[in-house]
Amino acid sequence: MPKLDLDAIPQTNATGYPPQYAEVVQGRWYRRLAPVAGLEDFGASHVVLQPGAWSAQRHWHEGEDELVVMIAGEAVLVDETGETPMRAGDVAAFPKNDGNGHVLQNRSGAPCIFVAIGRMADTACHYPDIDMHLFAGAGRQKRKDGSDF
Amino acid sequence: MPKLDLDAIPQTNATGYPPQYAEVVQGRWYRRLAPVAGLEDFGASHVVLQPGAWSAQRHWHEGEDELVVMIAGEAVLVDETGETPMRAGDVAAFPKNDGNGHVLQNRSGAPCIFVAIGRMADTACHYPDIDMHLFAGAGRQKRKDGSDF
Repeated sequence: MPKLDLDAIPQTNATGYPPQYAEVVQGRWYRRLAPVAGLEDFGASHVVLQPGAWSAQRHWHEGEDELVVMIAGEAVLVDETGETPMRAGDVAAFPKNDGNGHVLQNRSGAPCIFVAIGRMADTACHYPDIDMHLFAGAGRQKRKDGSDF
Repeated sequence: MPKLDLDAIPQTNATGYPPQYAEVVQGRWYRRLAPVAGLEDFGASHVVLQPGAWSAQRHWHEGEDELVVMIAGEAVLVDETGETPMRAGDVAAFPKNDGNGHVLQNRSGAPCIFVAIGRMADTACHYPDIDMHLFAGAGRQKRKDGSDF
């Protein structure tokens, strides 16, 4: 059936971040939808941010467009332009290679829920606020000088 | 700014359907988000279905995955398996070439709103309930025998 049974899809808070950068995403619980749904053209994640959780470390991708559709609750979108509230029904787009690091932070007292769409792409990801970088082909984050954590 | 100013994006109810099949989508008002947002990897439309409106004629694509994220209101998802209610927060996926014609119908008395994601792809689209077909490369709908309307 096309309608996804979200409750039946495993939820995880796994992260590839090293411990010193992982704390902010411990309350980020996500479900990978595309493999379950049989989608190949793009990826999609159903994400619940518990109070205090961030969607990621602030970042931008060299080669991956991203789109976020807010479903419930509130988050603060932090990027180079400042802070923008995001509420149910709001949509934000993050074009690849725009150099505008972005993150959603749940500063409220209730969970916030969104769906994030992207495309699986092996390209670099930049983290302006921390000494971390995802090199294309590396598969996981390293220090900006290329050394492992 | 990554958050899209939806009110500033032009809304249209334009359709390429011939008149005999267009009535059900007259109350389908959509905004194409990807060109405005600078996204290239996939397409996205913000859609408002007024009461009585359908998202499309029931259809399935040979080569385009689709995902729908419900934001507000109610719709009935009609496909080969029957009828399924869709409400805010629900997500439905339509893998390419699955042969399962689908449509969202707003049978409620209030608008329903969703975001639909797909990939621009020049592949055939099948309409099981009507004598219409989109042939790859044709650019617009024809009768199933290939003749123009």
